This record gives sequence, structure tokens and C-alpha cells, in this order.
Amino acid sequence: MNAGMLRNDALKGKTIIVTGGGTGLGKSISRYLLQLGANVTICSRRQAVIDETAKELMAETGGQVLAVACDVRNPEQIEHVMAETIAKFGRIDGLLNNSAGNFISPTERLSYKAFDTIVDIVLRGTYYFTLAVGKYWIENQIKGTVLNISTTYATTGSGYVVPSAVAKGGALIMTKSLAAEWGKYGIRLNAIAPGPFPTKGAWDRLFPEPLASLMDPTSRIPLKRVGEHQELANLAAYLLSDFSGYMTGECVTLDGGEVLSNGEFNHLEKVTPEMWDMIGETIKQANRASKKEGQG
Amino acid sequence: MNAGMLRNDALKGKTIIVTGGGTGLGKSISRYLLQLGANVTICSRRQAVIDETAKELMAETGGQVLAVACDVRNPEQIEHVMAETIAKFGRIDGLLNNSAGNFISPTERLSYKAFDTIVDIVLRGTYYFTLAVGKYWIENQIKGTVLNISTTYATTGSGYVVPSAVAKGGALIMTKSLAAEWGKYGIRLNAIAPGPFPTKGAWDRLFPEPLASLMDPTSRIPLKRVGEHQELANLAAYLLSDFSGYMTGECVTLDGGEVLSNGEFNHLEKVTPEMWDMIGETIKQANRASKKEGQG
Amino acid sequence: MNAGMLRNDALKGKTIIVTGGGTGLGKSISRYLLQLGANVTICSRRQAVIDETAKELMAETGGQVLAVACDVRNPEQIEHVMAETIAKFGRIDGLLNNSAGNFISPTERLSYKAFDTIVDIVLRGTYYFTLAVGKYWIENQIKGTVLNISTTYATTGSGYVVPSAVAKGGALIMTKSLAAEWGKYGIRLNAIAPGPFPTKGAWDRLFPEPLASLMDPTSRIPLKRVGEHQELANLAAYLLSDFSGYMTGECVTLDGGEVLSNGEFNHLEKVTPEMWDMIGETIKQANRASKKEGQG
Amino acid sequence: MNAGMLRNDALKGKTIIVTGGGTGLGKSISRYLLQLGANVTICSRRQAVIDETAKELMAETGGQVLAVACDVRNPEQIEHVMAETIAKFGRIDGLLNNSAGNFISPTERLSYKAFDTIVDIVLRGTYYFTLAVGKYWIENQIKGTVLNISTTYATTGSGYVVPSAVAKGGALIMTKSLAAEWGKYGIRLNAIAPGPFPTKGAWDRLFPEPLASLMDPTSRIPLKRVGEHQELANLAAYLLSDFSGYMTGECVTLDGGEVLSNGEFNHLEKVTPEMWDMIGETIKQANRASKKEGQG
Repeated sequence: MNAGMLRNDALKGKTIIVTGGGTGLGKSISRYLLQLGANVTICSRRQAVIDETAKELMAETGGQVLAVACDVRNPEQIEHVMAETIAKFGRIDGLLNNSAGNFISPTERLSYKAFDTIVDIVLRGTYYFTLAVGKYWIENQIKGTVLNISTTYATTGSGYVVPSAVAKGGALIMTKSLAAEWGKYGIRLNAIAPGPFPTKGAWDRLFPEPLASLMDPTSRIPLKRVGEHQELANLAAYLLSDFSGYMTGECVTLDGGEVLSNGEFNHLEKVTPEMWDMIGETIKQANRASKKEGQG
Repeated sequence: MNAGMLRNDALKGKTIIVTGGGTGLGKSISRYLLQLGANVTICSRRQAVIDETAKELMAETGGQVLAVACDVRNPEQIEHVMAETIAKFGRIDGLLNNSAGNFISPTERLSYKAFDTIVDIVLRGTYYFTLAVGKYWIENQIKGTVLNISTTYATTGSGYVVPSAVAKGGALIMTKSLAAEWGKYGIRLNAIAPGPFPTKGAWDRLFPEPLASLMDPTSRIPLKRVGEHQELANLAAYLLSDFSGYMTGECVTLDGGEVLSNGEFNHLEKVTPEMWDMIGETIKQANRASKKEGQG
Repeated sequence: MNAGMLRNDALKGKTIIVTGGGTGLGKSISRYLLQLGANVTICSRRQAVIDETAKELMAETGGQVLAVACDVRNPEQIEHVMAETIAKFGRIDGLLNNSAGNFISPTERLSYKAFDTIVDIVLRGTYYFTLAVGKYWIENQIKGTVLNISTTYATTGSGYVVPSAVAKGGALIMTKSLAAEWGKYGIRLNAIAPGPFPTKGAWDRLFPEPLASLMDPTSRIPLKRVGEHQELANLAAYLLSDFSGYMTGECVTLDGGEVLSNGEFNHLEKVTPEMWDMIGETIKQANRASKKEGQG
Repeated sequence: MNAGMLRNDALKGKTIIVTGGGTGLGKSISRYLLQLGANVTICSRRQAVIDETAKELMAETGGQVLAVACDVRNPEQIEHVMAETIAKFGRIDGLLNNSAGNFISPTERLSYKAFDTIVDIVLRGTYYFTLAVGKYWIENQIKGTVLNISTTYATTGSGYVVPSAVAKGGALIMTKSLAAEWGKYGIRLNAIAPGPFPTKGAWDRLFPEPLASLMDPTSRIPLKRVGEHQELANLAAYLLSDFSGYMTGECVTLDGGEVLSNGEFNHLEKVTPEMWDMIGETIKQANRASKKEGQG
């Protein structure tokens, strides 16, 4: 199903800031927010990239996009994005923390600095931006909403991406913590933990061979496919809209069931029907025994 | 926001069975499923109640409703509901396990029988119906979807409703287990954990004074209000539609943040701004110290 | 490390009932409880089996064992076990819910009856016994403690063992629910989620080929081995002793890290050091970049 | 129960580094590690404090303590602690990450800097030290073990301590991530989430009135009391010893059931027995009804 799900005016008049909005999922979500009537500010470190995206998305959707360069590790640049957004659109209603970075590596091969780099972008950037926007909302009595792009390994943990796991784990707990604390101001914070939603190009760079084949998710995932960007955009738009007005502190997993793989017996999926037939005698006997017990 | 969120044809042509669909939330969700184009079979033990509801909902929405009496603890009655549904609508696409029962009581005051009664309705009824519908879908290669109405205490546990907690806890694990196992057939299973969504009448019966005031959730809940039925119906319809086609094994909490209340310091919400001002000196000193350290 | 960890008198004078205590892990735990000075009542459906075990354990440890046949689905038999235990040992201090049953099978191949059989033994048996012992403790103002043998799939869910997952899931939520409710009486409830702790014989029956090789956990498990019975017995004895007196409502996982396998990138363990060297250029460049940013 | 639980030689010959070991829980755990035969290096920023503690603990236990000043945000200082430890004791077997910091405050009153200060001590310090020790263990093929002092709000989140929650949340995910990744080297990582274990003095500084009375945990906690340091030391020593050799990636909660407080109906603890008697008619009727159904 490749279409938008929400009624067409679901975000009419809302202004949403999307970090890392120039490419990939951030771009796909921004497109859908625009289609639903929102104004969008996209930011990332590279002005040229977001300028290009802004132009493309405005042409495509007829919506308003503001592109402001920003390193999310720098509070002044964050406050500059906010000021520009308010100057152009009048206010800020939503924040999508989507900036990310990752090193795929055995952890013992990482330097302290490399570890810091990821944590600073993913975690520090997220709490800086959330703190800045939250203060603005509380001061101006705006019932804003934050959506964080998390991962399933923010809860499960994962080897080989440990700085990212640490940072995403911290950001998820921020989501729950501030949801509890700022609910009284009408501010909501939620998160999405996406499974694999490949972006042509980015995906190939992230997973050079031989990682690519090892990462192939289509067999591992219960639903036997990767996700489509629009599926994630649907959920993101719902969580940023007033339709989810009673949800806060929640992280919704959208991963084709990938995270369920640690169920202790799930790998028995490899047993063929014929093998089950052979084993089946055991089960038939069990059923018979259970019937007997039922009578006994 | 009291309106439906999905595009009007989101469930067009789908047939969904709703257990406990005669009253309360089951009825509200059924209404919205009908508005989105679905055919709905509602069932509960009391034929008169569901007949009345069917009549009312058809008049209101112009949709098709079938009302079949069913005790979900009885597999034959379940299979009868399914047969009647297929006879009338041609097939079954979705199942909403919504039947429930509860005794609010200190556990040590319950008999074995009383405990069994709740577990049988809530847990046994859910796995019977899911097993029956799942077999039908696998045989007929239908990519059906199950939605279970869970609770937050299916994960947290809760005293004073222990039989219900046990049963809901088991049903939630069934959701995750079958999501992993049946994903290969294209069958999806998800759940919702709702906070307080009062139904006038039912709520008063469930919580006689003095329970009612103790249960008053508006102060305890971060968002300071109870939920509206349409908010839950929006989420339920999304999870039963193809728009959530990449989600399985997930339980989405919609509770105004109620479940976050065990954050160890959340009760400091009772500290007034004036008190924080007094305490604030500590914080200012801390900020000063942190600045010094940042330079050091 | 194949030895007991607690000081020798850790359970001196305590009386503990162990369901399913005749064989496997239940027997191993019973042995260690006896070595620590406890009196133990073991029960299971087969009197001959528990008589044999009682004889063996008493000879081995010098402790006191009572063997009483009991189908845990039958409240009268449960109350009989309790009466016999009190008659012989004077009182009951602990309950280890360890009885279990399992069918390994695709769920769609199970009958309603087969599903019920497992749920009745594992879930109903657990709440019956816990309810009975809890009422006794509350009446007699005894600060008793319950330990439930759970599984990791009581939290994660798992295909191919769904009735067991449902039942264990429900029992785990009972543990948390009653821990919250009965804490005021000084009653504690905890659980252990063990990974693979094979018992020669039982293990072979449970996993006939070709399941056995598919189930081989030594490669899947981070610590690359199965558990030893004494390791589980150490944890169980701790949780049943007063040394864990401030722990309640907790489920401790002891599984060599098996449950962590759903970390999204953990399967990169298959990448060899040589492959990482090749990929390493990327990482070196990343480190270099991060250093530059650190200066910038 | 105020005594040590492990056999006296449980940590004989092990060398363990304890960050924040000069005061409070870190000091209490260090004392017990020494009593069990371990060598202990304690570190914190203030040399005078840890010198005093080292002297006291050596006199008390007869064990060997090394005191090295260290700001855990500084990798060079961390490596210095390790070098000194290896110089004195020959090797390192365990690391207890116990250093912490906290600001209790509405989040919107915090500066970026204040937020950073806590995250840097609690999270950055933890991953720096763990990375440094892990590299040492892998290089030297030592099967070391890490224990992190976490909190329940590392999982639940909590308002009013958000920087600490974020940092502890990240550190907990590091625990799970590296447990999965480094299991193949025989390295284990676990955590403890303690409830309130007050240290006279520290507790009063942390919670000035009026926070103190609001924080009073004795009524909120199911077991109606705070924890004793030895109870935490028992668990910590177990997790640092080879007796827990099959546990990794686990966080054990020891909190008197405090974290269970979000069970939706747990606040019905306030209902008196007399009120339940009144309400009881409902339950009796329910029991009667359930008996009738059982017959029907």
C-alpha cells in the first residue's frame, strides 16, 4: 500500500522542524508532512543538500519549506533554526529528531573520539534540540509535540553499532522522561523504532559487501520484506498530528516483526512441513493424551 | 479532536469480527470500522444487546453489521460465528479480540473458580478465536490481521485485578508469538494498551464509590484527561487496515502517559514553582560549577 | 564453577515446596536447597518418580524430603500437599512453581484441547498453587516467598511453543501483580528466566532430530555454552532465601545472553577479523573525521 | 538480614576497580568485595576522600585497597588508574561503574551545560572506562566482568532527573550491547537497578526539605522499607563473581517492588478491608455467577 493514509488536512497550519531532513527517511517524511498541509523546516549540516531538497519538495507538493543549515551539537545553531522558523512561519508546533550517524564496527576497534562523535550527534543533538524547543513551548504555552526516530536496538541493545545504541538508548529514555514531566504543559513526546527502510544509495554506502548480504533482512523478518518509506511516513504523520493527542511517552515499532527474532524457538521456521509431519506423531499422541486427561 | 483520521475508504471491502462488540469501546470501534467501509460481525453472549447495536450502527453508518451470539469459551460457537460471517460477507479479513471481564478485588478474597472465570473469558476466549481464525486464514491463504485489546497491566502487572492481568499478560505474549510464527503467511497480530476510556454507565458499574474517586485518573495522568473513544477507534482502525502492513507483534500504548507513573521522581510534580525557586539555588550553583568544569 | 555459592546455613529451617521436583532442574534445585538446610516437599503427578528422588536426595544430602503426588490443576490435591507439608514440617516458607509441559509444533497444527492442556498445567497450576499458599501465608502472617521458573519467551514471545509462551507469559504477570499487591504482607514473588540448561535424557526426548541440531545453542549464545544446573540452583536458592529480602516482582534472566540475539546487528559476529580489516578503512576514516571535528 | 551471603572465598584473588568507591554504596560494596578476598582499586575525583576510605577499609577487612584519583571523563586518567592497578595487583578482573551525579530539577530550568555535566560523568565516564578495560581484556584474553550501577528509571524514564535518566538509559543499553558483542571473548556485563538505599548524610544533601518528605519511599514501596547496603552488596558481589558466570546483559532490579507502582490498580492499596467488605457483595455475586457458569 503505497499511499498516504491520513485525511488530507491532517496537519494543516502546523509548522514542523525536521532534523536530518535533507535525505533518506527524513526527506520522505517531510514530503508527506507537506502533503498534509504542514510547513516544514529542514536542517542538516550541508546547506547545498537541504536547499536542493527544499526546492524539490516545494515543487512536488506546493507546500512551504525552509532550509537552514545546522549542526545539532551546537545550541546556537539550533536556536538560529528556531528563530528563522518562527520568523517565516510564526511558530513551531512539532520537532522531528531524525539526525543520525553510525559506525558499523567491532567496538574494541573504536577510539574514544569515534565513540564520542556518534553520541554527540545522536544523543546530545537530540537533547539540545528538545530542550530548546521545550523551553520555547512552555514559555509560549504551545502544546507542541516531539517525535524521535529511534531504533529497536535502543531497547534491545546491539553489538557492532554500540555508540549508536548507547545514544539511541539515552534518547528513548529522554522521550519517556519528558513525556511524564511535560505532560502537564500539553507537550507530547513519542518515538518510532523502524526496521529496515532502505534508501537507495545510502543503504549501499552504509553496508558495503560483505556486510550487505549478512544484513539482508528479507529472510530474517517475519513479514519477509523491507519497509516502504510511505509506511513510515504514515505512522510519523499520525504521531505528529493531533489525532494521536492521547499518546505520549510511547515508542512504536514498525519493523515487520524483526525485533521478535529472539523468541527462543523462532528459528524452527527452518523446519519443513515434511519434517513436522514426521515429528507430528509426537503431537498427535500428545493431543490424544490431552483428550484422555480431559475425560479423566 | 473528535473526528476520524483515516481516508474514508481505508477499510473498504474488509470484513472484521469484533468480540464484545455490543457495548462500550467495542461498539465505538465497530462504528468507525463501518464508517471506513468495513463489514462488521459483532458477537457477545447476549443476542438482544448485539441485535440492538447492529440496528443502531447500520442506521447510523449505512454499513453492514451481522450480530451472532457467542460465548468465546466455546469453540463450536466461535466456529459458528465464523461460518455465519463467511456465509454473509464471503470471507473474514480481521479479528478484534475485545471481549473482557474483570473482578476488582484483593486477590486473597477470590476463589479458584472466580479466578478461572476471568482467565477463561479473557485468555482462553482469545486464543480459541485466534487459533480458529488463523487456521482458516492459513488454509485459504488470506493475509488476515488480528488486533487484541490489551492493557498496560498486561506488561506491568497490577494488584487487585490479578486474574485479568494474568489473562491479558498471556494474550499479549500470544500476540508476539504468533506474529513471529505466522508472519510467513502474511498474517499480522498487534495490540493496543488503552488507558482510561470511560463509557458512561459501564464505568459507574465497574467502579462503585469509594473506588471511583480513587480511580480518578485525571490527576495521575501526565496529559490530565481521560481518552475519547474516537481516539482509540482511530488507532484501532489504523492497526486493522493495510496502512499498518509492516507492523506486527507490536502493542501500542494509548494512555495519556499513565503507564509512565513509575518513573522514580515523577511524583515531584507536586513541588510548586515557588518551592523549586527555593531549591533553585542548588541548581544555579550546580550550573555554575558545571561551567567552571567546562573551562577547567 | 560447579559449586554452591551461598553460606551453608542460608536456608536453615525453611520449608519449601517444589512442584515438578522429581526430575531435571526441579531435582537439581531441590538438592541444593537441602544442602543449604531447607526441608523440601517435592510433588509431581507420578508418585513413583518422586519417591525415588526423595530417597536419593535424602541419602545424598542428609536433609528431609517429603514426596506427595499432585496434579497442579486440582486445587484439592494442592491443598493436600500443603496439609501434608505442614503436618510434617510445621509450616511452609517457600513455593517453587516449576511444573511445566510443552508441545513443540506449528501452532496451526494444535487442537483447542492440546492448547488447553499446556495452559492448564503451566498457568492454571501456577495460579492455583500460588493462590492457595498465599491465602495460607496471609492468614498465618508468614512472610513467605514464591519463585516461578519462567522463560525468556514469557517476555519475548516465541513461535512453535505458543501454548507454553501464553502460559508462561501469564504466570510472569501474576508474579509482578502479586508482588505489588502482597508486598504489604511481606510476601515476595520473583522469577527466573533460564536459557538452555539441558538435562541428559529429558533434552533428547524434547528435541528429537532434526530439532536437536537446529536447537543447538552453543553457537547462538554469546557465552558459547549451555548452563550448568548448579548455576541455576545458586540463583534459585538466593531468590528463595532472606538474602534477597528486598527483591520482589523481578524476573532474573540467566541464559548466557541468548535473549540478546535480536539486537539488529548482532549477526555481524559472522564477519571475520580479516573482513573487518578490509572494512576498517571506513572506520579509520571515520576516526580521522571525528578528530577533525573535535578540533573544528 | 544484615550479613554477607557468599562463601568467604567467593572473590579470592580477583582485582576489581570501583569508580565512585570512596563513599556511599560504592564504599559499602567495596567493603564486601574485600571481605570476600578481592583486591580493590577505588577511584573518584577527590584523592583525600578515597585515601581515607582506603585506610578505613583496609583496617576493617585486612584486604588490599588502592586509591587513585580519577575524573572518569578523562581517558588518560582512566588509563592511569588501570596502569596503577596492574602495577600493584598484576591484573584487572572486574570493573564496577558506580560514579554518578544528578540534578533534581524541572528540566526546563536546566542549561545545556548543566545537562551535559551529568551526561558526561554518568554516560561518557561509563563508556570510556568500559571501552578501556574491554580493550585490555581482549588483548590479554582475560574473561573480565563489568557491573554497572543503573537505576529503575534507566528503563522507565523519569521526570525531574532527566539528564541522569538519559545517561543511565544509554549506559544500560551499552551493557546489553557489549554483552552480546563481547560474549565470545568471555567478557560479561551486567547491571543492578537499586531502589532507595539511603546513605546517611548523602541522602540529606540530595533531598533537602520539602523534597525529602515527598521522596519518602516507605509508603510507596510494596515491601514498606528502604534497602540495606549489605543487601545490595550481596547482589553486586554475586554479579562480579564467577558464580554468575552464565549471566550477561542482565539488569537486576533490587527495589522492594518500587518500580511496580505503575500497575494501573495498585493504588487500590488505599482501600481498607472494611471498604472491601462493602464492595465484597459484588465479588460474592461474581463468585456465585462463576460457579453457575461452571455448571452450565
